[in-house]
Amino acid sequence: MAERELAHPEAANLVLTDVLFALSDPSRLAIVRQLADGPMETVGCQTLGGEIPKSTRSHYLKTLREAGIIRNVAHGRERLVSLRRDDLDDRFPGLLASVLAVEATASTR
Amino acid sequence: MAERELAHPEAANLVLTDVLFALSDPSRLAIVRQLADGPMETVGCQTLGGEIPKSTRSHYLKTLREAGIIRNVAHGRERLVSLRRDDLDDRFPGLLASVLAVEATASTR
Repeated sequence: MAERELAHPEAANLVLTDVLFALSDPSRLAIVRQLADGPMETVGCQTLGGEIPKSTRSHYLKTLREAGIIRNVAHGRERLVSLRRDDLDDRFPGLLASVLAVEATASTR
Repeated sequence: MAERELAHPEAANLVLTDVLFALSDPSRLAIVRQLADGPMETVGCQTLGGEIPKSTRSHYLKTLREAGIIRNVAHGRERLVSLRRDDLDDRFPGLLASVLAVEATASTR
């Protein structure tokens, strides 16, 4: 990634339909589920998102970041990706919890 | 519409990401908000979805129906469109409530 400091929307500017869209893809939702367990050092490693190509994963992370679902910041030589749980809970109470409560298998067939 | 009886997914087969996607469009979400107040006789009238073309509205309704969010059944010479609130609440507890709780203006800029 060329830029170290990526843009993140302010919590007050999060848009419900953007958040719903970002969560509506099984691969992006799988990343959100992984991050629900805590932040991850990523991009350097292949953990996040499983066995998907790095370019695809970067695109997923960009969609999630621009919707305000994740934060993606420089962290030493890696990047730290985390769920913006507090911001989401403040803006859209109960939404993230209801999504995460659904079994992953049920959500993706 | 050529067919009077349209297909509706069983409640048990609703897929979270399909539901999230169907809700992720401001126009489709606006229809869901309207239906939250009760079923509507539609297609014959121009009430549902406001001033959008009939073909566009039909496409919105199709996406919502196929995701399992609405029911669209023959009702005399009209059609009755209703929110599948109970099915959604059973499958994805809290999801619809959290979406509907967000101010419409905030959700669509």
